[in-house]
Amino acid sequence: MATAQVMYDFTAEPGNNELTVREGEILTIINQKVGGGWIEVQNSSGGCGLVPEDYIEICTKPHSPESTNKTNTQVSNGNNAWSGGGTYNNPMEHTQHNTAEDDDGEWDEEWDDFRATGNQGDTPVEEEGGATGRNTHLHRKLTLNKFAFSKAPNPEVYLLAKLPPKGIDRLPIYMGDVGPVWLYPEAPVDCVVADPKKGSKMYGLKSYIEYQVIPNMTNRPVNHRYKHFDWLYERLLEKFGCAIPIPSLPDKQVTGRFEEEFIKMRMERLQGWMCRMCRHPVISKSEVFQLFLTYNDEKDWKTGKRKAEKDECVGPLIFSTIDPESPELDPIEVEQKCELYSKFIKAMDDGVKDLLNVGNVHWKRCTGPLPKEYQKIGKAFQNLSSVFVTSGYQGETTLTDALTAAGKTYEEIAEMVAEQPRKDLHFLMETNHEYKGLLGSFHDTIALHKAATEKVREGDRMVLAGKITTPEKVTMAKRTSIMSYSLQAEMNHFHSNRIYDYNRVMQYYLEEQIRFYETITEKLKIALGQFATL
Amino acid sequence: MATAQVMYDFTAEPGNNELTVREGEILTIINQKVGGGWIEVQNSSGGCGLVPEDYIEICTKPHSPESTNKTNTQVSNGNNAWSGGGTYNNPMEHTQHNTAEDDDGEWDEEWDDFRATGNQGDTPVEEEGGATGRNTHLHRKLTLNKFAFSKAPNPEVYLLAKLPPKGIDRLPIYMGDVGPVWLYPEAPVDCVVADPKKGSKMYGLKSYIEYQVIPNMTNRPVNHRYKHFDWLYERLLEKFGCAIPIPSLPDKQVTGRFEEEFIKMRMERLQGWMCRMCRHPVISKSEVFQLFLTYNDEKDWKTGKRKAEKDECVGPLIFSTIDPESPELDPIEVEQKCELYSKFIKAMDDGVKDLLNVGNVHWKRCTGPLPKEYQKIGKAFQNLSSVFVTSGYQGETTLTDALTAAGKTYEEIAEMVAEQPRKDLHFLMETNHEYKGLLGSFHDTIALHKAATEKVREGDRMVLAGKITTPEKVTMAKRTSIMSYSLQAEMNHFHSNRIYDYNRVMQYYLEEQIRFYETITEKLKIALGQFATL
Repeated sequence: MATAQVMYDFTAEPGNNELTVREGEILTIINQKVGGGWIEVQNSSGGCGLVPEDYIEICTKPHSPESTNKTNTQVSNGNNAWSGGGTYNNPMEHTQHNTAEDDDGEWDEEWDDFRATGNQGDTPVEEEGGATGRNTHLHRKLTLNKFAFSKAPNPEVYLLAKLPPKGIDRLPIYMGDVGPVWLYPEAPVDCVVADPKKGSKMYGLKSYIEYQVIPNMTNRPVNHRYKHFDWLYERLLEKFGCAIPIPSLPDKQVTGRFEEEFIKMRMERLQGWMCRMCRHPVISKSEVFQLFLTYNDEKDWKTGKRKAEKDECVGPLIFSTIDPESPELDPIEVEQKCELYSKFIKAMDDGVKDLLNVGNVHWKRCTGPLPKEYQKIGKAFQNLSSVFVTSGYQGETTLTDALTAAGKTYEEIAEMVAEQPRKDLHFLMETNHEYKGLLGSFHDTIALHKAATEKVREGDRMVLAGKITTPEKVTMAKRTSIMSYSLQAEMNHFHSNRIYDYNRVMQYYLEEQIRFYETITEKLKIALGQFATL
Repeated sequence: MATAQVMYDFTAEPGNNELTVREGEILTIINQKVGGGWIEVQNSSGGCGLVPEDYIEICTKPHSPESTNKTNTQVSNGNNAWSGGGTYNNPMEHTQHNTAEDDDGEWDEEWDDFRATGNQGDTPVEEEGGATGRNTHLHRKLTLNKFAFSKAPNPEVYLLAKLPPKGIDRLPIYMGDVGPVWLYPEAPVDCVVADPKKGSKMYGLKSYIEYQVIPNMTNRPVNHRYKHFDWLYERLLEKFGCAIPIPSLPDKQVTGRFEEEFIKMRMERLQGWMCRMCRHPVISKSEVFQLFLTYNDEKDWKTGKRKAEKDECVGPLIFSTIDPESPELDPIEVEQKCELYSKFIKAMDDGVKDLLNVGNVHWKRCTGPLPKEYQKIGKAFQNLSSVFVTSGYQGETTLTDALTAAGKTYEEIAEMVAEQPRKDLHFLMETNHEYKGLLGSFHDTIALHKAATEKVREGDRMVLAGKITTPEKVTMAKRTSIMSYSLQAEMNHFHSNRIYDYNRVMQYYLEEQIRFYETITEKLKIALGQFATL
């Protein structure tokens, strides 16, 4: 068995089959071909689970040359310090697997013309059709591993780089009532994801699902497959990820569902994801997002796509396009804010996970034992009624009819109880699920910012040590201030959305709960009315 | 270890620690001193439990002379065929144990002046204060074992006896719309059991609970201890038990409860039992019952009590006082009715037990996991709210206040859910519990009637065999017809009460359920109102 050494602490996310490992630990490799940037390992106490490839270093020769190659490349990527974006495309890899693994997908997920452009990860089929559903980490890693997965992200490239001249794509930040805010568009972008259709190609041998995306600007539907959403996600993550947390796309595979339900669920979540992107003033106005929503034809789409993929203002360089109107910020205040955000994100993440856990348990009870119990109560009443019918006693009918009706009412209540979570808890869970993803994606943004403030704090020492010049120190401080403006604008955007979203979802939940209890009350009143007045 | 042979099949009542045994089976005796007419045994497959003393015959010499004496007496009683009432008092036994076991009771349960009168079973202390709570079988057995506990009750004594001249205490039966009915009094008797008080005697060394019983005829409270209710039960069972099923008194001991709760519960059940007795036209008008409700003073009570205990018109002789207005019934019709009643009682007993089981499970869920879950939902909302408070973002208050309020609402709902069974399910369960007891007490009444109809069917054969004369056969048929009138009157009484009771309890249950759901709805509406209008 091949072994591996843990490079960085990794904390497993509960319920995801992950394994918590600590730096220096030696692991046995169980399965290197899990895909999605994960490796299945066993620790010394026998615990098994998945860890990100980037977090470990393989010690002995793995099973196949292909996976060795792949793993080593990525591990070495993971070990590199952050050094700017744009160097992690390996067209060769994509060409390789595309021919070999294309048939594994439930639906054909060929990457078509995207094939040679890279940035797709190395197992597109598994991503779409496999059961792992682990695209998040892969994408994050491939795109951001230069800084996100190293223990201390190093923002030097932006802080000290000679930046290109400012282009026309400026991202202005204003001082609003709540502090720095992005410039919000007068006409907010919105879109509907609808009408999933099964398409097929290669004479029906391969099939896929295509969704209609209808933006409010044109009201003209464009067709996109999940893969295209994924491509958009990659582009947004690459371009804006350092400044704006881009939440992962919905899980690629929800296991154990009917195909129809699965498609509906995915569509609902793609809709949610698109809505969130639409609501972001920077993202919704970006060229690549607009392309996705409004391309005219295949040619238009391909041209735009290639242009987006060639964009060099990606990664931390995004900060060079930010235009804050206010003067430099106090570094101490900046650090405090950053600390506050970090704590808030962590605390909210805990709160959201807690709510999700509680909701999950409640969901199970409401769809499992509870309705069965109401059903049994209903049956017991009806059963008693049918015994009473046999009494042969006069004047039995009013009671037996009423008792049967009451029994049926409790059977109806049983059904209502079982159906209810889909009506109210579902939306509450979906929103919190979305926020869980969103909060998770904040980590890198905040960590990068923190690394920048630390660099600034070390500025004088570095000047003394001759590592940087005084003008460089000043530039660093200025640029960190810009990063801070950006982070604050983003946090304010987050808070305002959060308040809106939670206000909405709680109202919706309570409204549906009220409707539920009102309906039960009405049903019981009707049942009561059937009994003889005493 | 002493062993015993099973004389008659005995089917354990679930949840009562009883053991099902079959005729001829050999048992090992574990504990002969359980009391209440029960013996703890182990069967050949290792199963342990209680069986009635009367059902088994001890094979070897038991542990103590006292218990040998007792057991043998009772076993031999059980073996006797039914031969009329009035021969089963053994004052000696009562004198014996009263001095020895008096201190075992939680409250002093001395039998005072009842001591020498017998008919109290041989372990009064255990019955009142012990944990067995098994008075039912004991009393039934002591009083009715001449016919009830033998496999085929033999009603010959009434059917063929030379009856005393008809007295003034006639029990008329009329033909009503529903068939034979008892004569119902114009002014129904009712009473309230209230105000339990702890009394004490022997300078406070011994204490007991005394209840006030206030009948509607006099509105003058009389005091009674549980023991006195028990005495009344015994008298009613002895006098009317062959014709009228007398439900057992509430369990003597409800284990694991606080003293206050226990007293309240017992009072509630004594009230229920008294109400049922009051509602019976024959019982409520009987001398012994009237004595219990309206005695003037200690002397009055003692005189009445002694008179009641000397009453010879007990057991099956009660049928000799019944005056049906209609002619003799068709024996085939009688048999069919009897069969119908028997089936109905059995089916209703199953239905009631089913409802009790379902209700018990529901009770546990409502007071256990369900409120905990609502509490967790409430906590999760409040927790999220307290995270939101730390955001430092403007305009957070409306949401956090509303979210906290919603969380508190779910905590309140949790409390409501946990409290609700006491408010609605309790009454439904109590009523069914009472009916379970009532249905159980029907068995002997019906079995006795069945035995009589079988005797009539065998009439011709018995005449031919020279066992009875033709006039005796005619008398038997006439008297069985009277028994049948009585049974029908009783069944009609039962049905009419059952319809009233179930109508009432279901209405009450539904009303409380409606109130419960309405309250939740109101609370949720208030919580909803706190969120900002979007």
